[in-house]
Amino acid sequence: MAGRAEGRGSRQGGDLPPGHRDLQHPRHPAAHGRGVRPPLRARRPAARVHRRRHRGVSEDGPVSHLLDDAVASTPLGDGVHRVQVTADWHTANGTPNGGYILALLQHATLRESAHPDPLTIAVTYFRPAVPGPADIRVREVRKGRRVSTYDAVLVQDGKEIAHAVVSTHDWDAAGSVEHTPHAAPAVPRPEDCADVSALIPAGMMPILERYRYRAPTVPGWFRGEPSGSTESICWIRTSDERPVDALLAGALVDAFPPATAEIGQLASATIQLTVHYRRRPTGTVWTLGHVVARHVIAGYHDEDVELWDEDGRLIAQSRQLAILAEG
Amino acid sequence: MAGRAEGRGSRQGGDLPPGHRDLQHPRHPAAHGRGVRPPLRARRPAARVHRRRHRGVSEDGPVSHLLDDAVASTPLGDGVHRVQVTADWHTANGTPNGGYILALLQHATLRESAHPDPLTIAVTYFRPAVPGPADIRVREVRKGRRVSTYDAVLVQDGKEIAHAVVSTHDWDAAGSVEHTPHAAPAVPRPEDCADVSALIPAGMMPILERYRYRAPTVPGWFRGEPSGSTESICWIRTSDERPVDALLAGALVDAFPPATAEIGQLASATIQLTVHYRRRPTGTVWTLGHVVARHVIAGYHDEDVELWDEDGRLIAQSRQLAILAEG
Repeated sequence: MAGRAEGRGSRQGGDLPPGHRDLQHPRHPAAHGRGVRPPLRARRPAARVHRRRHRGVSEDGPVSHLLDDAVASTPLGDGVHRVQVTADWHTANGTPNGGYILALLQHATLRESAHPDPLTIAVTYFRPAVPGPADIRVREVRKGRRVSTYDAVLVQDGKEIAHAVVSTHDWDAAGSVEHTPHAAPAVPRPEDCADVSALIPAGMMPILERYRYRAPTVPGWFRGEPSGSTESICWIRTSDERPVDALLAGALVDAFPPATAEIGQLASATIQLTVHYRRRPTGTVWTLGHVVARHVIAGYHDEDVELWDEDGRLIAQSRQLAILAEG
Repeated sequence: MAGRAEGRGSRQGGDLPPGHRDLQHPRHPAAHGRGVRPPLRARRPAARVHRRRHRGVSEDGPVSHLLDDAVASTPLGDGVHRVQVTADWHTANGTPNGGYILALLQHATLRESAHPDPLTIAVTYFRPAVPGPADIRVREVRKGRRVSTYDAVLVQDGKEIAHAVVSTHDWDAAGSVEHTPHAAPAVPRPEDCADVSALIPAGMMPILERYRYRAPTVPGWFRGEPSGSTESICWIRTSDERPVDALLAGALVDAFPPATAEIGQLASATIQLTVHYRRRPTGTVWTLGHVVARHVIAGYHDEDVELWDEDGRLIAQSRQLAILAEG
């Protein structure tokens, strides 16, 4: 059942929670006869990448990034925010990646938050969003002195697409106890890793054009030879080199190929995803993801991501429960 | 800062999310001069343990268990369930353990669920519950064919205590793909492990009388010698030998001493806890918990639990983000 792109058919319009990062691939991407190709970002129309200033990260000029356009929201009052879902993060399913949906929910919620930083977000995915307008309804669950909690629902055409619980706080008011015996994986820096993105055929799916992937070695499943080990390490950055903040970190944890790809299971749909933010990211463009699925049981699998910055500091950790499309 | 029971003072009535398993201890429990003592369950009044039949687990007679009494709910209509919060799961904080709060929320939600089994539950803790009546307001977020999702809020005296998102499904309708390279930790069976509970002074706190703990070796922090390793392995069962089902599994993942005890940090309060259920437990009374805190950063720590049955099958896995009481 290696690399079965056809598996996704069973999830179209079904009731499995979708909204996801399924970086599905034909069995042998390299067999498409394209080989190494120019960096993906060269193909982005400059006008689009730069049409809107990215707020809150860049301080050195009118730099704009696609993710900020894609999560931009208009407050309609009473905690409701109008957004425009784009097709730019579509996966092989033809539906938006779950990390992008998470970013939409997180962005709108932070606009309502009493605190500046997300601490945790727990998302449940119900059905695929479609490109076009949508509303995010943010509700304050509890405002606290140190931690506040909100829920947010993405609604489109009267249907609930995804639901998030977001707790926020202020890193500047955090404590001081540190104990970090687990360091970032020891791998070469991105420039010394294999350029996985260069091996991806153009036009395969939009999400693969949003990010650049580099790995110590080209993943086995990517060569059509799944390794059997559901653990991987991969550098990732946006194609337009957006600096990493909590918004992007939330998207990134769901932007890796499913860890089950290495057992030949590429069609995986997230049901529930919890992200814990572990510090305020600063000054990093690449992040290193350590992706592990420990237990595939009855067609469900966990997937943990530890997301590290370029200096080996943990930015975020996530766990999701996902379901494989069988049959 | 080893074993600082005084640390808990900073969390009484504050705005830190409490509701938790803080198995706080005076610095040297063994120094209380009590030594080995009879099993805790011998001290339970039989009338109380057996006063109510446990529904849905036992099939061989009128056996009743305390947890079932403690989560019993009366439907008031419109998804509202009246419960009675008990002091029987109080931690050193003098407030209910988070695992018990989770069980309350899960139990009420399952009474509203279209599906029989919990798949995931994500709880955010806001403030301590107090013994006495409370309402759980369950709302259907989305009813699906395979997975349905609910939210539930525990409300007491008009204040929100804790909030849960519960997704439910039916294990009998699950898939078949299995890949389980990570086995349960190889440790002796409970009867061949150290009886940690026998070392706990009587009357220290109610939650310690709810469970029996056995470990391959007595934990270092328990002897006043924290090991510095925030990873532990421990058998646990209820004192009244309740068979494990999903309800109890949810309580158990938050019933272990905090993994940070081994770095001298005993006062830890859960902010967010996500549990993924991995199979329907059957025929097990003891479970084995593998508890790990990987990253303590700015006073926040993660804590993962893998909960295994007596036959080495994964029942549930949880992750929480918790905050240490500093100062």
